[in-house]
Amino acid sequence: MIARSKKGVLLIVSGPSGAGKSTVISRLSQLRTDLRFSVSATTRAPRPGEIDGQDYYFKTQEEFWEMIKLDAFLEHAEYVGNSYGTPAAPVDRDVAEGYSVILDIEVQGAAQVMEKRPDAVSVFLCPPSMEELERRLRGRGTDSEEKIRDRLMAAHREYAQAHKYRYIIINDDADTAVRELDAILTAERCRSSYILEGENLL
Amino acid sequence: MIARSKKGVLLIVSGPSGAGKSTVISRLSQLRTDLRFSVSATTRAPRPGEIDGQDYYFKTQEEFWEMIKLDAFLEHAEYVGNSYGTPAAPVDRDVAEGYSVILDIEVQGAAQVMEKRPDAVSVFLCPPSMEELERRLRGRGTDSEEKIRDRLMAAHREYAQAHKYRYIIINDDADTAVRELDAILTAERCRSSYILEGENLL
Repeated sequence: MIARSKKGVLLIVSGPSGAGKSTVISRLSQLRTDLRFSVSATTRAPRPGEIDGQDYYFKTQEEFWEMIKLDAFLEHAEYVGNSYGTPAAPVDRDVAEGYSVILDIEVQGAAQVMEKRPDAVSVFLCPPSMEELERRLRGRGTDSEEKIRDRLMAAHREYAQAHKYRYIIINDDADTAVRELDAILTAERCRSSYILEGENLL
Repeated sequence: MIARSKKGVLLIVSGPSGAGKSTVISRLSQLRTDLRFSVSATTRAPRPGEIDGQDYYFKTQEEFWEMIKLDAFLEHAEYVGNSYGTPAAPVDRDVAEGYSVILDIEVQGAAQVMEKRPDAVSVFLCPPSMEELERRLRGRGTDSEEKIRDRLMAAHREYAQAHKYRYIIINDDADTAVRELDAILTAERCRSSYILEGENLL
């Protein structure tokens, strides 16, 4: 007989800086009890108060390289001289245990994860318009003019990748965006390929 | 810029008799204001009180045959000497106007609609087990032993088609099933192929 899948969903969320990813994800985590977040590995030094295995898995350059060789990352990248990566094992374990795992990740990393885990569910979260994105970035009041221009140019490049994502959420209203992300997780657990995976019908 | 699709979703719902389709669909229609139901065409005579264009579109055998030749049906079938069909035009018009249209339809008809409208979203609604289905059918107290056996055999045949549907909802609890069907409609409107259809990015 057909039964609900016991597996969770690996959920990739990408989108331009200023799209509102953090707010939407944090509100979703208050709504659902079946969510877990991935912890990244990094070679950068811990900052005061950061806890190994909670904020990051802190690794030496050698350990990090070893993990790359063992194909132990879902994705990895360099950023201002340090390496960052998403270890596969904890994510796969959480998904197998029935938790949905959210990866809040930029577009290049997302492409690597989609390649390695084709059953991952990908969501591109974007602001309703470029004008609105610019308004939000300026509204923060934290970035220089140059930084804002950089972010807008990056957003343009990121938009061109939106078609690679299974879903697009237009974040013109946080309530709606949270409701849509929640619906995507619920719907994906009803996907027939997902439910019938490895099942003998009848 | 990316914008929400103005189109609705064509939603096919199939499942064994006794799966609870009518209850789930009727409760969903109380929840969402963007739903419409398809009206079938038939060659059978109107029963007292039935209104043309509301309960059915009542057609002569000649009119029905003309519609088949014009490819005006999403699906059609014979049942105890009468013809039944789903006219495509009202469905397509409602979807274009932004309504989601539900077709509550058996598996052969569903297969025809999936063929004609590959972007239709299909859901197989099923009881949690064959034992539970049998219990529900007997619980109705309306069917003969022979009729119940027929329905159970039909359910077996229908189950074997479940993998052809995009989603499977296991109706062990009506609240959950309604919530899942609602989530599927919300999620499908966020599908990137759907949002980007005919759009120029940026």
